[in-house]
Amino acid sequence: MNIETISWQNNRIRIIDQTKLPGRLQYLYINNLRELWRAIKELKVRGAPALGAAAGLGIYLAVKDSRAKTFGEFSAQLDLAAKYLASSRPTARNLFWGIERVCRVAGKNRNASLPRIKELIFQEALRIIEEDKLSCRRIGELGSALINDRDTVLTVCNAGILATIDYGTALGVIYRAVEKGKRIKVYASETRPLLQGARLTSWELKNKKIPVTLICDNMAATLMQQGKVAKVITGADRIAANGDSANKIGTYSLAVLCAYHNIPFYIAAPASTFDLGKRSGRDIIIEERDPREITGLFFRQPIAPRGVEVYNPAFDVTPHQLITAIITDKGIIRKPCRKNIKRVLK
Amino acid sequence: MNIETISWQNNRIRIIDQTKLPGRLQYLYINNLRELWRAIKELKVRGAPALGAAAGLGIYLAVKDSRAKTFGEFSAQLDLAAKYLASSRPTARNLFWGIERVCRVAGKNRNASLPRIKELIFQEALRIIEEDKLSCRRIGELGSALINDRDTVLTVCNAGILATIDYGTALGVIYRAVEKGKRIKVYASETRPLLQGARLTSWELKNKKIPVTLICDNMAATLMQQGKVAKVITGADRIAANGDSANKIGTYSLAVLCAYHNIPFYIAAPASTFDLGKRSGRDIIIEERDPREITGLFFRQPIAPRGVEVYNPAFDVTPHQLITAIITDKGIIRKPCRKNIKRVLK
Repeated sequence: MNIETISWQNNRIRIIDQTKLPGRLQYLYINNLRELWRAIKELKVRGAPALGAAAGLGIYLAVKDSRAKTFGEFSAQLDLAAKYLASSRPTARNLFWGIERVCRVAGKNRNASLPRIKELIFQEALRIIEEDKLSCRRIGELGSALINDRDTVLTVCNAGILATIDYGTALGVIYRAVEKGKRIKVYASETRPLLQGARLTSWELKNKKIPVTLICDNMAATLMQQGKVAKVITGADRIAANGDSANKIGTYSLAVLCAYHNIPFYIAAPASTFDLGKRSGRDIIIEERDPREITGLFFRQPIAPRGVEVYNPAFDVTPHQLITAIITDKGIIRKPCRKNIKRVLK
Repeated sequence: MNIETISWQNNRIRIIDQTKLPGRLQYLYINNLRELWRAIKELKVRGAPALGAAAGLGIYLAVKDSRAKTFGEFSAQLDLAAKYLASSRPTARNLFWGIERVCRVAGKNRNASLPRIKELIFQEALRIIEEDKLSCRRIGELGSALINDRDTVLTVCNAGILATIDYGTALGVIYRAVEKGKRIKVYASETRPLLQGARLTSWELKNKKIPVTLICDNMAATLMQQGKVAKVITGADRIAANGDSANKIGTYSLAVLCAYHNIPFYIAAPASTFDLGKRSGRDIIIEERDPREITGLFFRQPIAPRGVEVYNPAFDVTPHQLITAIITDKGIIRKPCRKNIKRVLK
């Protein structure tokens, strides 16, 4: 099955509506910036690299029909679109990176005609998509060297095709290892509250015919205790200059459990996920989401008493000390993290 | 609101159907052993101490109308009932303890008339209930000394009123601390897959007007990282002679996280939960349950691809090294565990 997470089709953005998976593979057309904002907020499209691509196309969508007469006017519209889109979700670096990247093209070409600037923005958005494909392949190639034949790898959330344009980051590492002939089994941690591991990762891996076993998040420690986990690999949403990595809630827990059980813990993420402006994880804003994600199981039947207080952080920060290595498209980053991040990303 | 987890009413067992909570507080009458077996299997009644009480009443229910003519015949019926009931769930020690206890009464009084033996079994079953109430109070009293004013305590699953006859074990410690005027906040970990934390513990605590915040299981580490958890207290389903404790899946994970964050980790359980015949946790049988508990959210809409492989252990074993102390009705057991278990339980 060919899965296209996000693409430009008939002058609009087409995404897979990921809230419909695993029940249905349903594509959704995004006609304007407001629709994209909502699709991001509601996780119809999600995954840091995919958000970077969505951001580029989204900004183009916002200004492609602009009737601005001057660059100043156009630039103001661009700023407004950028700010609006950036308000959809706070944590994933790639979203902001994508927005900044296409806006920068406009700034650099301020003397060009407005139709030409629009065209350049569009090309830059498409370039983000093409580059993401390449960087995932590169992450897969580099990371697969860390995986042994017959390894059982545990992952959380979805850092696969559905989180990127193609191939994935953490799952890309697994896909490449399998292509190289390594026999890999995967534990997919379901990833409460929104179950991206159950709904997306196990679906992706089943499509790829890679053996996958679904567990609840609270079962990972038991598998490690039984010696059944060789490695943990996850994606990341934002990585600070010292290597502290924000990723889906539950990632930090896995990193601590790995340290206790002497299991390598890897992060796989493209360079666009790094935010060198953040000295450490303490500077990363963690999104808190609707309590009903926890109390209602997709807002349907209540599973907790009415009015119960809820804490619902969407991400957590794993300190660099707990990360064995960060697999990026520019190279594998080991300790000391801060120094090697600078060197590898230069 | 007065909650009566399990009682003898109108010549049958009455339980709260816990699968209906938090939506409805609905009582269910159990008319025969088969109904009890199913209620236990389906977790309509659950919690190690409550299962001990259910076992006693269940055996009485099975034999009260026995038409046996001889003790041998009666004893054979008793054995059959005991074996059948014991096959409902394998892990909680109290279930077996309850069965053994009422059966022992029969054995000891083999020379009495059969109506008299039935009466003695009934009295023993009621005694289990009364003793459980007292032992929970005692656990609460002893454990509450370990809790400080303004502590925030994290717990998993439900070790409260609904897991016992009254008051609870882990929650009993909290209830008593609050009665003593300590200001306690609780984090209830939702406890996938069957969400006893979300459905039962947060409901119980809200009834008692104790501040409770519901989290997903994968969020506990983040709270600890933020310094928001002073103590973790859980119940137990079976405790080996060396202190290794089987409890709801996810407990071991919390114990490792506590060790990493230097947070005291307490188990609260009555003497009836100890199984000195098991040298260590390795000898404890861990129940594996229906995969659909994970893939279907209460068997309703699918949240994972059809046919995905699932691992669904209902319990895990926390090694004694990770347990700060075990709070029992006979006293608080600290390290060295094996020695002190013998001494305290003598």
